[in-house]
Amino acid sequence: MRRTIIGVFGAGERASEADVANGRLLGELIAREGWVVLTGGRDAGVMRATADGAKSVEGSLTIGVLPHRDTVPPPSIDIAIVTDLGSGRNNVNVLTADVCVACGASSAGTLSEIALAVKAGKPLVVVGAAGEETFLSRIGRVEFAGSPAEAIVLIRRLLEAG
Amino acid sequence: MRRTIIGVFGAGERASEADVANGRLLGELIAREGWVVLTGGRDAGVMRATADGAKSVEGSLTIGVLPHRDTVPPPSIDIAIVTDLGSGRNNVNVLTADVCVACGASSAGTLSEIALAVKAGKPLVVVGAAGEETFLSRIGRVEFAGSPAEAIVLIRRLLEAG
Amino acid sequence: MRRTIIGVFGAGERASEADVANGRLLGELIAREGWVVLTGGRDAGVMRATADGAKSVEGSLTIGVLPHRDTVPPPSIDIAIVTDLGSGRNNVNVLTADVCVACGASSAGTLSEIALAVKAGKPLVVVGAAGEETFLSRIGRVEFAGSPAEAIVLIRRLLEAG
Amino acid sequence: MRRTIIGVFGAGERASEADVANGRLLGELIAREGWVVLTGGRDAGVMRATADGAKSVEGSLTIGVLPHRDTVPPPSIDIAIVTDLGSGRNNVNVLTADVCVACGASSAGTLSEIALAVKAGKPLVVVGAAGEETFLSRIGRVEFAGSPAEAIVLIRRLLEAG
Repeated sequence: MRRTIIGVFGAGERASEADVANGRLLGELIAREGWVVLTGGRDAGVMRATADGAKSVEGSLTIGVLPHRDTVPPPSIDIAIVTDLGSGRNNVNVLTADVCVACGASSAGTLSEIALAVKAGKPLVVVGAAGEETFLSRIGRVEFAGSPAEAIVLIRRLLEAG
Repeated sequence: MRRTIIGVFGAGERASEADVANGRLLGELIAREGWVVLTGGRDAGVMRATADGAKSVEGSLTIGVLPHRDTVPPPSIDIAIVTDLGSGRNNVNVLTADVCVACGASSAGTLSEIALAVKAGKPLVVVGAAGEETFLSRIGRVEFAGSPAEAIVLIRRLLEAG
Repeated sequence: MRRTIIGVFGAGERASEADVANGRLLGELIAREGWVVLTGGRDAGVMRATADGAKSVEGSLTIGVLPHRDTVPPPSIDIAIVTDLGSGRNNVNVLTADVCVACGASSAGTLSEIALAVKAGKPLVVVGAAGEETFLSRIGRVEFAGSPAEAIVLIRRLLEAG
Repeated sequence: MRRTIIGVFGAGERASEADVANGRLLGELIAREGWVVLTGGRDAGVMRATADGAKSVEGSLTIGVLPHRDTVPPPSIDIAIVTDLGSGRNNVNVLTADVCVACGASSAGTLSEIALAVKAGKPLVVVGAAGEETFLSRIGRVEFAGSPAEAIVLIRRLLEAG
């Protein structure tokens, strides 16, 4: 039976400590629900933390959608999807996820995924927005969560509505 | 000799009248400089207006990067690049342009192109921002122009710095 | 720990009965080895048969890389990667697989995957070639197997050499 | 008015002298017809020769669809479309061309373009096939030309039938 996939997006090397901590907890909580965790696949920042968090849960499954052939994912990625699409892979991330979650909204890559998710009409939750709420609400439907636990409640609701 | 390409991005069916008017004038002014005009290729909103504006200038050249095989570009597109990449073509738009110009910043598709341009380190000008300046300045280097004529001055400067 | 992925490629609606039977058995045998099975994700021909064969094995994992947003994979696909890249997704299939296997070589889509695998330097096995051996051997390194069981022996060897 | 684009595909560094010579002459003859010449954009083999041939004709226009951001096209490319899709750009080449022409059929990259053209239902001419005719005829509709001049006759016919 087709597995539910939750995409968690966030910055790499320049991610804030708060976003990384949110990513790690999100990965863990999503895995506990039995959902598959999908990330942008790089071994840095929110991407690594989310996969690490998920793999702390027994029976979890993690997918990393790699931007390039030579991208080395963290050991916490079970399934590496190799695209060689560069940032073009961001649209694959968004379309593959049943619900998209962004940790922070101020990195360019993450913002592109937020925008592509809205464009594609995908359910979208932003965790840890820091003043971007007004701006993002103008472009389309975006839910905001103050914490990973709140995000899980929203994801569950969005999946049921789906 | 390799031609200089200016990408003009903006909303389709839901574009504001102001953004459409800016697109048309930008297309015309860019073509007068002898630069090639690139758009997202659809027959609507800023995309059509920009190509139309460019084709009002003799000797102009317009490229439309179409999202799907069955996308019909406006008659003002000379060269149709057919990608069948959906919104994945937005990254092609950004990478192909020597300078990226956004008409407005509140549609999801345009915002994804703004974010991808910042991510790719491409020179970027936003014309007609309506309150998004603070937010966009936080994600990276973005120039703001109050009018198409101002944008042309900025584009020229960015090309020289290039 | 990163899972080993075997990509099985073959025709859809127009697949021959022999290729479909090979796909089904390949799916089963690959799953028995504990490897993940990847297909082009459509609910037809070799793609469906391979996923069906794999899901007849307990604990198997199947990935379908879908060409379009509205592609409906067969129920035997666990993980649907949604690309909206059309035939551009064929290169994702090839790059993601640790070893590529083609069931037959005479459909255009499968031939494109064979050619892309050679281009990418990916280990490649063709099962059930029907006279194409000489031609395909000229474009690069291709292994030929007379049956799914023979293919498994070759895959194991290619993974060890990997 | 929308320009007619002829895509010419062929090997890079390992192209045969005959294929390179055919590419150069094809580029020139296509340009003389007033059609736009499209290549895979690299500065090698058939790709460079075709663009060079086209630029020997006054008023010609050449497009190169580059596989990566750092690909440097030959000086004979007027318009560089930068995809960062790797071999995924081969499908863009095929879809953008009104008629596809392959110079030789034995390189993996060119064969992938031949297969993708057949898959997409694009008119396709192979110039200088060396024994691949039987094999290629089995995958779908392919026209064969013994020389660039013969190819031009076929292209004209295919465009009229278009």
